[in-house]
Amino acid sequence: MKTLDVGLVGLGTVGSGVARILIEHGDRVAHHAGQRLRLAHVVVKDKAKPRDCQLPDGIVSEELDRILDDAQITVVAQLIGGLEPARTIMRRLLEAGKDIITANKALLAEHGPELFDLARKLGRSIAFEASVAGGIPIVTNISQCLAGNQIHSLSGILNGTSNFIVSQMEQDGMAYDQAVAEAQQLGYAEADPTMDVDGSDAVQKLAILAQLAFGARVDWREIPRTGIAGLDPVDLTYASELGYRIKLLAVADLTSTGLELHVSPTLVRMGTPLGEVRGAYNAVSVVGDAVGQVFFHGLGAGQMPTASAVMADLIDTAVGRTQLTFHTLDLWSDEATRVELSDPALVPGRYYLRLSVDDHPGVLAEIASILAEQEISIASVLQREPPTSESPDIPLVIITHTATEGAMRAADAAIQNLKSVRGKMTQMRILD
Amino acid sequence: MKTLDVGLVGLGTVGSGVARILIEHGDRVAHHAGQRLRLAHVVVKDKAKPRDCQLPDGIVSEELDRILDDAQITVVAQLIGGLEPARTIMRRLLEAGKDIITANKALLAEHGPELFDLARKLGRSIAFEASVAGGIPIVTNISQCLAGNQIHSLSGILNGTSNFIVSQMEQDGMAYDQAVAEAQQLGYAEADPTMDVDGSDAVQKLAILAQLAFGARVDWREIPRTGIAGLDPVDLTYASELGYRIKLLAVADLTSTGLELHVSPTLVRMGTPLGEVRGAYNAVSVVGDAVGQVFFHGLGAGQMPTASAVMADLIDTAVGRTQLTFHTLDLWSDEATRVELSDPALVPGRYYLRLSVDDHPGVLAEIASILAEQEISIASVLQREPPTSESPDIPLVIITHTATEGAMRAADAAIQNLKSVRGKMTQMRILD
Repeated sequence: MKTLDVGLVGLGTVGSGVARILIEHGDRVAHHAGQRLRLAHVVVKDKAKPRDCQLPDGIVSEELDRILDDAQITVVAQLIGGLEPARTIMRRLLEAGKDIITANKALLAEHGPELFDLARKLGRSIAFEASVAGGIPIVTNISQCLAGNQIHSLSGILNGTSNFIVSQMEQDGMAYDQAVAEAQQLGYAEADPTMDVDGSDAVQKLAILAQLAFGARVDWREIPRTGIAGLDPVDLTYASELGYRIKLLAVADLTSTGLELHVSPTLVRMGTPLGEVRGAYNAVSVVGDAVGQVFFHGLGAGQMPTASAVMADLIDTAVGRTQLTFHTLDLWSDEATRVELSDPALVPGRYYLRLSVDDHPGVLAEIASILAEQEISIASVLQREPPTSESPDIPLVIITHTATEGAMRAADAAIQNLKSVRGKMTQMRILD
Repeated sequence: MKTLDVGLVGLGTVGSGVARILIEHGDRVAHHAGQRLRLAHVVVKDKAKPRDCQLPDGIVSEELDRILDDAQITVVAQLIGGLEPARTIMRRLLEAGKDIITANKALLAEHGPELFDLARKLGRSIAFEASVAGGIPIVTNISQCLAGNQIHSLSGILNGTSNFIVSQMEQDGMAYDQAVAEAQQLGYAEADPTMDVDGSDAVQKLAILAQLAFGARVDWREIPRTGIAGLDPVDLTYASELGYRIKLLAVADLTSTGLELHVSPTLVRMGTPLGEVRGAYNAVSVVGDAVGQVFFHGLGAGQMPTASAVMADLIDTAVGRTQLTFHTLDLWSDEATRVELSDPALVPGRYYLRLSVDDHPGVLAEIASILAEQEISIASVLQREPPTSESPDIPLVIITHTATEGAMRAADAAIQNLKSVRGKMTQMRILD
């Protein structure tokens, strides 16, 4: 049986997982790859750092040249995070003739077009299954398994940290800060969880999926996003009373006015597959014109689930499938047909609204007439007695029928001007 | 752009769906295939029969030779059901040098080894995504996307007809015959639903998945199966009270005593992904050593979901991925390492038991001591007053802790001998 020499750049959590599979499960990898994958060299930043995997003597160094100069190593898993030196290393690896596997979503969201163009120019390939949704093979499913479909929409829970935090808030009535602290303690959230909770991580992943599903070449910073940091537990309670859960949802939707992309806390009906995704799990629901709805659920992060995705790419590249897919799909290419993004103001959707209002007659009528002026119909209303007898404010929850975002913005502005409304109106989308 | 000539044998429900995508969505198929797929010829049994798709003039005939003799047609979707003439046609197509796509699970379950050997010998490929779980791309996910894993277990709802029938019984309290009649009326069940409801269809699909996931070359007739025909609505009610739904589950489980395969009505906990699969949907849960649990859900049958799977195979074959996968994996090969099937008697599991017993003291003690003799622990018991005052029999429901199937059989035999037990004991597995 043939042997293929594989290089590894980075031996952090995911890199160690990949190394373990290559070393401990060589036979089964060989069965699927039709050849033995030999871990020939591993480049790390600090050789002295203790690692959680046992490697053969002499294969670890701090010198990238050991991989670049080794013509036997034709496939490299580049598993370091951040933009630099990741970008430069990837360029050098491509220029040295290596096919690349990466898990670095930030790098692809930021420099995908440049790196893919370079790989194409050099006749090399980049595989990136591990960059989105960890163990869920969503990249291959969209670019290969569902290739007979026009994808109509894609809705995903792509950030396990946020989903864990919101699940904790919902199940145990925790406040946001407390849930974040628990997520950090359990290792689900970083010391600085900003990228997770502000929606940046989900938006970067959505940009990659939108490229695959719709050929949309979009700057991730331009995708509208709302994170979970401002989430009030009271909205989880009302949502639950109305039969919904709140999920940080990444949505790509092909509408009559163009492609709509956004990440925001969204009400998802209980009992539906996306509504039942708990804890640190990820999930993606894809609707295609032929297949209907297909739903994928699995661990979106963690050492071995992510290593599973990297291994799939390594095997695909060893077999030669990746190269065929990469050169057929022309991802992030200037020559690819562009998809127009829709004007957010025209995007239709249903909304959950919560306001604090004065307890006096006519308030609901005022609000209802503003909504009516914008042609927003009310589907249901929940009005409660004040939380305490001293409080003069009444919580008012409204679920709308379908309305455009533009109409909702106009209504919001008018409602904020009402004397009887206290503070800002909370508004969230509802997934239909 | 290059053009690839594609042949179609069979223009039934699925064939018409595939023809429609090829004809109506040529551009997007070309984008994913890197070449145009031209429907060059369609062979049918009866040219005069009306079809639900518009085909270009002159491309439909009743002569297989029109495809066999056309060297330009290198890829053929063979979409006819049953064993003959499907098998002979597939042999002739392979011998004429065509790569094949098929949706015929019965043919693969029955003649897979012969056909795959022939394809290998001739340097051709057979793709069969559409043969299992319709629109869910489970074949590619197991053989490619999860290739870095040792699959530990696989649990699937692979027969949408049965799931629809059981869902109707559960939701609306319908009797089995009534639910079957409704499924037939809605087009979910054939006039003769035997293969669906007796578990044969699910077992054939399980045999294909077991081959992919475990290399298990097994005769589908040897896989233990129980269908849903004997399902008593009362068990759905008790299961529901205990927090479970009953699903016709196909299970492949790699245990310490070997691979366990079976299809049977099984209690699945509510709120889990498999427990929430309703109506005619299919779902598969796969557990791998690296990825953990991944769950797939989608439409398991129907014209366009199945056509979606066929199109994925057509595109994979056009791109060249199928050929690489087919020749690497060595499916159903005599040379592949065999997996031992476990002795069913040694297979551990939890059980749901329901008995009808005399209403006299000591009955529960008798049954409990028989179970104890077989080292079967009781997890919970549900004993009710008799359904009617005239009825002397009491329903008794027992949920066990883990026990082997052998112990359960021995206990069953001993319990049947008790004078105080009426009729046969109902027993079903519980999915952990």
